[in-house]
Amino acid sequence: MKLLIFAGALRADPCNKKFAREAMRHAAAAGHQCTFADLKDYPMPPYDGDIEAATGVPETAQKLGELIRNADALILSTPEYNGSIPGVLKNVIDWLSREKSVSLTGKHLLLLAASPGALGGVRSLWHTRQPLEVLGVHVFPGMMGLQNAYNAFDDQMRLKDEKTAQQLQKLLGQFLAHADLNVSRKAA
Amino acid sequence: MKLLIFAGALRADPCNKKFAREAMRHAAAAGHQCTFADLKDYPMPPYDGDIEAATGVPETAQKLGELIRNADALILSTPEYNGSIPGVLKNVIDWLSREKSVSLTGKHLLLLAASPGALGGVRSLWHTRQPLEVLGVHVFPGMMGLQNAYNAFDDQMRLKDEKTAQQLQKLLGQFLAHADLNVSRKAA
Amino acid sequence: MKLLIFAGALRADPCNKKFAREAMRHAAAAGHQCTFADLKDYPMPPYDGDIEAATGVPETAQKLGELIRNADALILSTPEYNGSIPGVLKNVIDWLSREKSVSLTGKHLLLLAASPGALGGVRSLWHTRQPLEVLGVHVFPGMMGLQNAYNAFDDQMRLKDEKTAQQLQKLLGQFLAHADLNVSRKAA
Amino acid sequence: MKLLIFAGALRADPCNKKFAREAMRHAAAAGHQCTFADLKDYPMPPYDGDIEAATGVPETAQKLGELIRNADALILSTPEYNGSIPGVLKNVIDWLSREKSVSLTGKHLLLLAASPGALGGVRSLWHTRQPLEVLGVHVFPGMMGLQNAYNAFDDQMRLKDEKTAQQLQKLLGQFLAHADLNVSRKAA
Repeated sequence: MKLLIFAGALRADPCNKKFAREAMRHAAAAGHQCTFADLKDYPMPPYDGDIEAATGVPETAQKLGELIRNADALILSTPEYNGSIPGVLKNVIDWLSREKSVSLTGKHLLLLAASPGALGGVRSLWHTRQPLEVLGVHVFPGMMGLQNAYNAFDDQMRLKDEKTAQQLQKLLGQFLAHADLNVSRKAA
Repeated sequence: MKLLIFAGALRADPCNKKFAREAMRHAAAAGHQCTFADLKDYPMPPYDGDIEAATGVPETAQKLGELIRNADALILSTPEYNGSIPGVLKNVIDWLSREKSVSLTGKHLLLLAASPGALGGVRSLWHTRQPLEVLGVHVFPGMMGLQNAYNAFDDQMRLKDEKTAQQLQKLLGQFLAHADLNVSRKAA
Repeated sequence: MKLLIFAGALRADPCNKKFAREAMRHAAAAGHQCTFADLKDYPMPPYDGDIEAATGVPETAQKLGELIRNADALILSTPEYNGSIPGVLKNVIDWLSREKSVSLTGKHLLLLAASPGALGGVRSLWHTRQPLEVLGVHVFPGMMGLQNAYNAFDDQMRLKDEKTAQQLQKLLGQFLAHADLNVSRKAA
Repeated sequence: MKLLIFAGALRADPCNKKFAREAMRHAAAAGHQCTFADLKDYPMPPYDGDIEAATGVPETAQKLGELIRNADALILSTPEYNGSIPGVLKNVIDWLSREKSVSLTGKHLLLLAASPGALGGVRSLWHTRQPLEVLGVHVFPGMMGLQNAYNAFDDQMRLKDEKTAQQLQKLLGQFLAHADLNVSRKAA
């Protein structure tokens, strides 16, 4: 499958990009064609109906929408800001939702979260599901929150803890099998 | 009391600004000192830890924080984007939360929503509560969602429907009495 | 497919049973083998760890679990009690979750709601998703809330409003196609 | 103040009763008049509109409602069942909501959770807030989830970990000060 992987944060070096890339590494090793999209490369202003009326959906949002449209399945790792979805990620979703044909609709998506705290971003996971599901995304029921994420990766940006790495790999395997079944069947 | 009123949208003329202003009109008539803050006057970029590390919390967020700090109570009317809190509003909350002393903490807040749809933004109301409560805001349990909001206001930007206007006024009265009790008591 | 249809209420004649049966009628007409389970026929006490330790999972929960296990896909119409999932439905889910192999896990489920109010049970829809998804249910992203439900059905318990009936039929078609794809593929 | 303390579980010896009692011990030491209500002493059937029509709200629910009505403030410790509010607790709330004058409305409530898992029942905390807030309860924004709860108490049913005990005491102090301010002011 063609997978698009991204993280819900802008910072150059956040734990969520590392977590997303770990998932990508495993998926690539399993033979999938993986693309990583860094939201920093797709800057867009806070949603403003006046901007939209004047100049339409920003090109960056259109380009990101195109990447999503071309992907068979998505993997998203999201931070937790104030016990909920990051505004910056929600803003990207809000712009994406303004395209006539919404790229996210009908896609299969695995939701991850990494957080420096003890709860692993679980409140963000559940708050992030909702707008995605409203847009018709098949968010995989299984999710994974990585706690204590600032200390979770080694110098090569790999998960230090073997059990955690296996947990990710197992969940990823389940998701990819499920998504693959849907994608290949539709293509058939 | 000193009240700060704002809406969770940028657009110049959205129904949420109208709804917030209707609440303000009633509160002013009841003798409260009201300030309306238009988020368009406080532009801030999507939250980015790198920006924060380089230049700190944007001045616009600091100014908005100062307004909140000086207010005795808050009234917020929020749109619903994709069944949840608007990214643009969440982004403002995320920046506000980065100040050392978070202006929102401990404040009493009345949450309203206006939406062109039939559900009156109820999903946004419940999703917007969570980050506010995580930050220690006393969000009033009673809320009000205005449905069919594009047709709800007359030329003077007043609610056309008498029953709806009374509902707002009643809820506002309950909220102001509750907030006043807390504010005056603390001052005593 | 073999479909199990049920409603999250006990009352003999509630709008949610009617709504669930309307969905069943359409599904049966499309050639699916439909079973309706009335929760009133599966009485179980409020979950109590002491009861479980003494006598295990109630037989009624085991029987319902067996029906779920045998079904290819599920349709559930849930009331909204106090802006959330009914306790009686959550209690059934809690008991079902105590079986060693949880019948709900991996099932595809369409979630409906009917409510006498103007919001069509939308808060219940979103609160009911969460425990189901925690248990690994693929809850279809599309949902439907029926507002003003006490006046929505005629004497033959059919939806009076043509547009509403078409909306249900369309959503049901999408769900059944999606579930069928997954079920048949797995079987292949 | 007169405080009513209860836990959202039936089992004779669950960690949530212990956690609630720890909060009670501190509140009593601070001079408050504390009553513990064990839900096991107030058995009620799963909500059924037919039962209600035939015999009204169960006496047990009325008695519990009376205790709540007489209390100045409430402390509730809730388990997490399947990532959400326990059905048994929601069922109690559903019955309480059927009284003509709902005892919970307008009350100040501190919400706690204890859970054997690593997340401390945080998903239940947020799901339990919603029906309470829908009923007009002032749920204190600060909450506390106790993780790893099976090992958290010593033989005297006291929290082993000093830091955790202090966290509870601090939160409790904040809540009681806030509730006291509201209660005494109203009485004045």
